[in-house]
Amino acid sequence: MPEPRPDEALIKVRMAGICNTDIEISRGYMNFRGVLGHEFVGIVEHSPDPPQIGTRVVGEINAGCGECSFCRAGMERHCPCRTVLGILGRDGALAEYVSLPVKNLVAVPDFLPDEKATFTEPLAAALEILEQVKIEPADRVLVIGDGKLGLLICMALQLTGCDLRLLGKHPEKTQFFKRLGGAVLSFDDLEEQHQRYDVVVEASGHPSGWNLAVKLVRPRGTLVLKSTYHGSLDFNPAPLVIDEITVQGSRCGRFEPALRLMDLGLIDPTPLITEILPFSRVEEAFDKTRSRDALKILVRMPS
Amino acid sequence: MPEPRPDEALIKVRMAGICNTDIEISRGYMNFRGVLGHEFVGIVEHSPDPPQIGTRVVGEINAGCGECSFCRAGMERHCPCRTVLGILGRDGALAEYVSLPVKNLVAVPDFLPDEKATFTEPLAAALEILEQVKIEPADRVLVIGDGKLGLLICMALQLTGCDLRLLGKHPEKTQFFKRLGGAVLSFDDLEEQHQRYDVVVEASGHPSGWNLAVKLVRPRGTLVLKSTYHGSLDFNPAPLVIDEITVQGSRCGRFEPALRLMDLGLIDPTPLITEILPFSRVEEAFDKTRSRDALKILVRMPS
Repeated sequence: MPEPRPDEALIKVRMAGICNTDIEISRGYMNFRGVLGHEFVGIVEHSPDPPQIGTRVVGEINAGCGECSFCRAGMERHCPCRTVLGILGRDGALAEYVSLPVKNLVAVPDFLPDEKATFTEPLAAALEILEQVKIEPADRVLVIGDGKLGLLICMALQLTGCDLRLLGKHPEKTQFFKRLGGAVLSFDDLEEQHQRYDVVVEASGHPSGWNLAVKLVRPRGTLVLKSTYHGSLDFNPAPLVIDEITVQGSRCGRFEPALRLMDLGLIDPTPLITEILPFSRVEEAFDKTRSRDALKILVRMPS
Repeated sequence: MPEPRPDEALIKVRMAGICNTDIEISRGYMNFRGVLGHEFVGIVEHSPDPPQIGTRVVGEINAGCGECSFCRAGMERHCPCRTVLGILGRDGALAEYVSLPVKNLVAVPDFLPDEKATFTEPLAAALEILEQVKIEPADRVLVIGDGKLGLLICMALQLTGCDLRLLGKHPEKTQFFKRLGGAVLSFDDLEEQHQRYDVVVEASGHPSGWNLAVKLVRPRGTLVLKSTYHGSLDFNPAPLVIDEITVQGSRCGRFEPALRLMDLGLIDPTPLITEILPFSRVEEAFDKTRSRDALKILVRMPS
C-alpha cells in the first residue's frame, strides 16, 4: 500500500494499461526498480483536497518539486528533481492503489468509459507533437511505426488535415489506421516511390527507425523523435547538417486536450485494445504485450 | 581554365580561404574529387551580364537547377541537383580562375578589403543560425569549438546581446574571443559548474562534440549542429526524447547580411587570419591549416 505524502492523494486503480516503455524498462531502460505502470484510471480514496474524494481521475505522471525554475515556468514535466510514475523514483499504477500529488490529477468526463480514459497518458504524448511542431494542413507527414503509440499519433495528426501516411511492418496493425480512412505504406511501397516528407515522426521503438527517418525527411523538414529504448545506434550527423533538418525530441503531453478529444468522439482509441485481463493475470498481460501482433493490453483491477 | 556555361561568369580569383571542410574532404568527406576551395573574392572577367564585368564579387557556393520545387521556393541551397563550389560536382576557387552562375555573385562593398571579403561564406554560415533559431537577448548560449567557425559564430551571436560562452581547448584560439570582450570556458570550468544552456552550438568539428552538446543543453533547449566530418558516432536518442531537445542542423547562409555586418564594422574577422600565403605555396597553406594552432590561412592569387 503506497503511503501518500501530505500533498498527495491515494487512488484506488480501476484500470491500467501496459506500454512499450514498460517492456523497455523490463530490459533495463531507465534502471527503474519498483511497481511499473503509468497509464491508469482510478477513484480518489483519500486526498488533502476533500472535494476530490470519490472523483474518477487520471494522473499526470511527472511529479515536479514545485520550486525550481522549471516548475515555476510550468515545465514540471522537466523538473530535474521530478519523479515519474512507474518510471523514475515512484511506484506505478499496475497495483490496486497508487499515490500522486493532488495537482497531478485530472477528473475524467462522466460519460468517458474506463477503457478510453486509460489511454489519456499515451494520447497526451501523441498530442505533444502538435504543441511542439506546427503541422499545416498541406504538409506531407509520415509516421514510422505501427505500434500503439504510432497509431495514436496517426489519430492525433489526422485531425490537422495533413497528408498523412503510416509506415508499418504489420498488416494486422496498420489495418486499424486503414479502417479510419488512413493511408498506409509498406516497406515495398517505400522502395518504389522516392517521396520525402515535410514531417517524419519516428515512433518505431527501434534503433533502425532513426536512420530511416533521416533518409525520409525532406531538406529543412522536421523529424519528430518519439522512440525511447535501451541501447544506442551508429549515427552520422552530416545529413542533418547538410539538409538542415530539425529534430524534435518529444515525450509527455498535457492530459486535458486528450480527454477533450476522446470525450468529443474525435479520437476513439478502443479499437487498439487487444484484450482486457484481470489483475490476477498481469504477468500474462506483459507476455501478450511483448508479442508481435498485440496492441494495447489493459488490466482490470479488482473492485 | 574553367569553361563557364551560358549562364555563368568567369571570375579571376584574388584571394581564397581554406576551411576545415576542405581538410575533411581531403580525408574522404563528400567523396569529392576536383579543385578545392569555396571561400574567395575575385573580379568578374567574362559574364553574360556585361555590366558585371570588372566587378569585385564573392559567390554563393550552391548552384541550384533553378527549376525544381526547392529552387522555385528560394531554397537553391537545398536543390537536390545542386552543385557546390569545391565540394560537390563543381571545381572550387583555390585556382586562378573559377566559374559560377551569374545569379550566385554578390558585389563586394568598395571599402571592404579582400582579406575580409574572403570570410563572407563562413560568416554567412555562422549567421544562418540566426535565420533558423530565435536567440533572445536573455538566452544563455554556449558555443562548443574554438576553431575558425566557432569563433565566427561567437562574433555573430554576440550581436544578439545573449549571455554567450565559448567552450574551447586551445587558449591561443579562445583568446581572440576574450579580446572581443567574450566569456570563455575551459573544460575544467565545465566540471566545476553544472550550468545547462538554452542554446548550445556544436561547432567542434569532432564526433565527441555531439554527446557533450546533448549533456549541456537544458530540457526543451536547442542544439545547433554545425560540425560535419568524415565518420560516425555512437548515439543514444533517449536524452533527446526525455528532455525534448530541438536539434537544428545548420549549413550555409545568405551572403548579403555577412557583407553588411563586415562593411558596418560590426564584425571584423581579420584577427582570425593566421597567415596569407601566395598561391605558389598552397600546399604549405593546407599543412598549416591542419596544424592545431592555426586559424584562417588565406591564399593570395597572382595578379
